[in-house]
Amino acid sequence: MQFELSLDFLDQLKNAISIKDDSFINAQIEDLYAVDIALILNRLDIDEANYLYDLLNEELAADCLLEMEDEKREALLATFSTKEIAEQLDNMESDDAADVINELPENIQEEVLSQIEDIDQASDIANLMSFEEGTAGSLMAKELVSVFAHETVSACIDEIRLQAESVDVMYAVYVVDENEKLIGMLSLKKLIISHPLALVEEIYDADVISVKTSAASEDVAEIIQKYDLVVLPVVDQLGRLVGRITIDDVVDVMREEAEKEIQLMSGITDDVDSNDSLWRLSRARIPWLLVGMCGGIVGSRIIGNYENQIQLRPEMAFFIPLIGAMGGNVGVQSSAIIVQGLANNTLITDKIAPKLLKELGVGLINGLICSSLILGYNLLISESWALAATVSVALITVILCASFLGTFVPLMMNRFKINPALATGPFVTTLNDIIGISIYFLVGRLLYSIF
Amino acid sequence: MQFELSLDFLDQLKNAISIKDDSFINAQIEDLYAVDIALILNRLDIDEANYLYDLLNEELAADCLLEMEDEKREALLATFSTKEIAEQLDNMESDDAADVINELPENIQEEVLSQIEDIDQASDIANLMSFEEGTAGSLMAKELVSVFAHETVSACIDEIRLQAESVDVMYAVYVVDENEKLIGMLSLKKLIISHPLALVEEIYDADVISVKTSAASEDVAEIIQKYDLVVLPVVDQLGRLVGRITIDDVVDVMREEAEKEIQLMSGITDDVDSNDSLWRLSRARIPWLLVGMCGGIVGSRIIGNYENQIQLRPEMAFFIPLIGAMGGNVGVQSSAIIVQGLANNTLITDKIAPKLLKELGVGLINGLICSSLILGYNLLISESWALAATVSVALITVILCASFLGTFVPLMMNRFKINPALATGPFVTTLNDIIGISIYFLVGRLLYSIF
Repeated sequence: MQFELSLDFLDQLKNAISIKDDSFINAQIEDLYAVDIALILNRLDIDEANYLYDLLNEELAADCLLEMEDEKREALLATFSTKEIAEQLDNMESDDAADVINELPENIQEEVLSQIEDIDQASDIANLMSFEEGTAGSLMAKELVSVFAHETVSACIDEIRLQAESVDVMYAVYVVDENEKLIGMLSLKKLIISHPLALVEEIYDADVISVKTSAASEDVAEIIQKYDLVVLPVVDQLGRLVGRITIDDVVDVMREEAEKEIQLMSGITDDVDSNDSLWRLSRARIPWLLVGMCGGIVGSRIIGNYENQIQLRPEMAFFIPLIGAMGGNVGVQSSAIIVQGLANNTLITDKIAPKLLKELGVGLINGLICSSLILGYNLLISESWALAATVSVALITVILCASFLGTFVPLMMNRFKINPALATGPFVTTLNDIIGISIYFLVGRLLYSIF
Repeated sequence: MQFELSLDFLDQLKNAISIKDDSFINAQIEDLYAVDIALILNRLDIDEANYLYDLLNEELAADCLLEMEDEKREALLATFSTKEIAEQLDNMESDDAADVINELPENIQEEVLSQIEDIDQASDIANLMSFEEGTAGSLMAKELVSVFAHETVSACIDEIRLQAESVDVMYAVYVVDENEKLIGMLSLKKLIISHPLALVEEIYDADVISVKTSAASEDVAEIIQKYDLVVLPVVDQLGRLVGRITIDDVVDVMREEAEKEIQLMSGITDDVDSNDSLWRLSRARIPWLLVGMCGGIVGSRIIGNYENQIQLRPEMAFFIPLIGAMGGNVGVQSSAIIVQGLANNTLITDKIAPKLLKELGVGLINGLICSSLILGYNLLISESWALAATVSVALITVILCASFLGTFVPLMMNRFKINPALATGPFVTTLNDIIGISIYFLVGRLLYSIF
């Protein structure tokens, strides 16, 4: 049932566009949803996309525009006149329209806004554009139905009928006082099952969760998730109802958050995807590579101090990669568990010591297992007792250190309001690399002098 | 407005429970939501939790139970009689009740089921228990309102009124034919604004997206996300309507997916969090540590082949960590971008070559930058031209190799239906470590013979 875009399908469609075979094109896209057509538009050349777009009916066209990739949408809109753009915006909900207009070149934003026919829509959009990105204000839509407490159910239903055109999805109506302050809500279900002459004040639910326009979008996502909401009303500093955020917008925020987390963990500093330009991709990745390189240089200085020892016992060099890799792996594991606990609030962070102790316990168990195995291997394979002892003692020490750092660093970052996901990535790996090498050669010097 | 659990609050509450100061306790929790009270229950001893639980009213108590951590809930339920458990289940939606009963020891499941007073609820739960975990069937709830196409709007509303008790949240009613096959839906908004005597067949929306009970929960999450739905009807193999999945359940699936991805990337094999036992945490982490150790051993054998070279030129050893770290970092970056593209479907995967070429382009740019910098450093700091050339040539080769592998491995894994997130973790890092060292010493042998 789900549409999968294949290269074959795309070729056929491109061909049909080139010979202007409208009936074939319409037959192909007739059963598709906006999100599917957007996938196609993303993959067409700009002239082809333009041709296909003109075949769509108004409502569907606006929806497709919203579902397209940002860059492709910008390219398509660049071929439109300001009047044509304004017509598209008229068919969108206010929050989507504001997002689209915010992406336009600044010099035409005002012109587009002035050409929107529906004055209310234009002023809603202008209002939404004033909120900072990443706040509840920038996420919310203005379309909602609000009623007074003294109205009857049947008056509410009339109001809904009046607004039905502009509000696409509706789950509840909001109850406000004479100053437009939000005082409660009424689910559509409750509205349906109540007597038409019942008063709103007799049946509404005063226990309504809301956020301020200035709330961070991460907090909005958390509240919606925590309290299992599908829609969340937004109020201004005075408590007046100004908009609502629906869960589909929040699902997008959640997905972006998860992607940002993974990128931070992977040492990518900017929000990129594989369709971005070569330069953007390179620029997003070079910073942490440079950090890693500095770490490598520090490592080379440390090993440099042991030049004589390596000349005498070159076998010490054999296990440098093992020590480095194990420190890195353990550090990443420890910090991933902490970062995850912080993200889903299962950690109470006011006590750090028990977490550290537990993590050291895990490190001790796994360190003992790994050390014993590598000790056995070295006793079998190598003639040097000193080497065998050095590798094993260094390994367990490195694992314990990495467990400690992998736990401590993200907890500290969190305390100082730095995103702890940074710690799971190249940062902890680089740190553990350096510390691991220092430990390894220190232990080596010590044990070789004993054996 | 949001509740934050502090240790102070917890101490006061524990104290009030010990002296049975019910009025203080009630005052403290009066304004809290179920999810907040569940946070408190999670942190209390089992006797304390039991005491607090008894103070809650029926509906709220059942909700709190659902929001508790799995292990704590099991512990609390273990103190209940089967009759008491059955009473809790009677206050839940069928899908939640089935989840709870599935967690109970098998020997008491049947007894609990037989003690549920509402026979319909009991049979719904039994039905839901038969679906495999991770399928749409296991996610869905049975509570829904369905109507026939020939009914009137006002008959629908009567039906909703009848079912209002059992269905907590309601966004739409479903339209079925005489064989109970799903043929469409009707939003509550549409119902409200339509004339009471209008026929369902005149106003319903035949364009309804549904899934089969056997659909994977990841696919359910994708469909709900892609088409911006809040509720998705579920049909059996014959197309008959059997349940519905709401977005809040899917948000949970999404969060679990994201967590699983991060754990795979971090080399953790099992779904654990920091509250799990020491043994479970250790066991989830040892497999990839052992893989990393095997990689380290292979690395030691490779370096072992160059023992004489190291004795002659110990400075070669200095840059082993740098080469290893850079290969690892680049590999993780490349694979993270591919894995993310696969996860959000922005990649068309039928052509691999262009992706590889682009990734090699990024590798070339960043490789040239890093190599030039380290060349400058080595020319300044070290007397050996051969070493300077070796490190730089090896570094850019390693970065190109790591870019290639980081792109190729996850794409291949995806083709063979293995979760590509595995590739972003220790797997690619270990592989790149080994390849990096081989390249470094090969290049070294070659260049030292020239200079």
